Amino acid sequence: MGIEPQGAPAPHRPLTGTPRRPRMAGYHADKDQLLRRLRRVEGQIRGLQRMVDTDTYCIDTLTQVSAATKALQSVALQLLDSHLAHCVHDAIAAGGAEADAKVAEASQAIARLMRA
Amino acid sequence: MGIEPQGAPAPHRPLTGTPRRPRMAGYHADKDQLLRRLRRVEGQIRGLQRMVDTDTYCIDTLTQVSAATKALQSVALQLLDSHLAHCVHDAIAAGGAEADAKVAEASQAIARLMRA
Amino acid sequence: MGIEPQGAPAPHRPLTGTPRRPRMAGYHADKDQLLRRLRRVEGQIRGLQRMVDTDTYCIDTLTQVSAATKALQSVALQLLDSHLAHCVHDAIAAGGAEADAKVAEASQAIARLMRA
Amino acid sequence: MGIEPQGAPAPHRPLTGTPRRPRMAGYHADKDQLLRRLRRVEGQIRGLQRMVDTDTYCIDTLTQVSAATKALQSVALQLLDSHLAHCVHDAIAAGGAEADAKVAEASQAIARLMRA
Repeated sequence: MGIEPQGAPAPHRPLTGTPRRPRMAGYHADKDQLLRRLRRVEGQIRGLQRMVDTDTYCIDTLTQVSAATKALQSVALQLLDSHLAHCVHDAIAAGGAEADAKVAEASQAIARLMRA
Repeated sequence: MGIEPQGAPAPHRPLTGTPRRPRMAGYHADKDQLLRRLRRVEGQIRGLQRMVDTDTYCIDTLTQVSAATKALQSVALQLLDSHLAHCVHDAIAAGGAEADAKVAEASQAIARLMRA
Repeated sequence: MGIEPQGAPAPHRPLTGTPRRPRMAGYHADKDQLLRRLRRVEGQIRGLQRMVDTDTYCIDTLTQVSAATKALQSVALQLLDSHLAHCVHDAIAAGGAEADAKVAEASQAIARLMRA
Repeated sequence: MGIEPQGAPAPHRPLTGTPRRPRMAGYHADKDQLLRRLRRVEGQIRGLQRMVDTDTYCIDTLTQVSAATKALQSVALQLLDSHLAHCVHDAIAAGGAEADAKVAEASQAIARLMRA
């Protein structure tokens, strides 16, 4: 999944180098907030396991599933916003064919999210 | 959230007793499968945390968010199906005003899921 | 699509007769409201055609697509609620294997809506 | 909704000077395809009105609602893709604060679509 070795303070988007993938993801600056959100979702999923395990009423359990789904979608929107603002932005600013590829890739990710 | 004390082998749907909520949820028979699914979702969320922590490329991370969202929605559909087949079914079979209340409650849960 | 001749005041759910389909849909009583909603959606879709035809800014056009989608989902929720309150309700109240089939069919429709 | 009077060949988005914005929407080149898709959706909505009017079975009606919703979401994805490939692309290529505004605006539109 394109994980780069740590401790490599490389430029965000090596335009000419070999690695196709950036060393820092577009969401790098939001990492702490994203991790906090994901830990909260993890807590919601564990809460759901306890609810199911203790035969909590279906509707209450479903309400919690809706809440966790909504939280995950907020994470998706934040990732997407960062991706547009950094990765797609930088590819377009650099020009070339990479820009079109980035836009197409982003559109496909949006389609996957809408159909999720 | 209506969790009943364990060790109370009460009937599934106490029609005349005081507790409004069933002691066993509609999904009781699917519990193991639901818990397995929820543990898999938990694994996906932890995987997402590692992806974010190691600056995995945004699009790969988003693909994993879509997969986790889809898995959660499958859990929701299974809960809903069990709820209709057991709780709503039994309320209707028993007749009375409770039946209408159960249908209205289920519709609201479906609306929440569709808007999640 | 199971359209019955009008003027046939048949029972809502002919359990033993030949026609498998009810002569009146579960939403029969809400027909006028549903038709009004659908006409409004039709107006939104025609409005969208005008917007596209006059090169209206993409984001304004997308906002209108979101509004029309939301309106269609409200129609879906109303249809589903009526279906549960009438068709599924009556099948369960009548008892027998038809009840389970109706619940399974409703669950599948909900799944289709959530993935739409 | 920003529809300009016909015959008024004003710039689409007259900021002040030489219009940085295209007079044509981002989807201009896809207009015919979009209009065809929207006419098909309109046909689906009219079909739905006939289905409701003739008491077509709820589940068949719901299946058609799901199909129309899916068709509308495809229109949304096409509009969004064109918007990124043209309007957002051009704003970024031109540089300046407008680029950030465009990305933020696109993110908000995506959020509306996901919550629709």
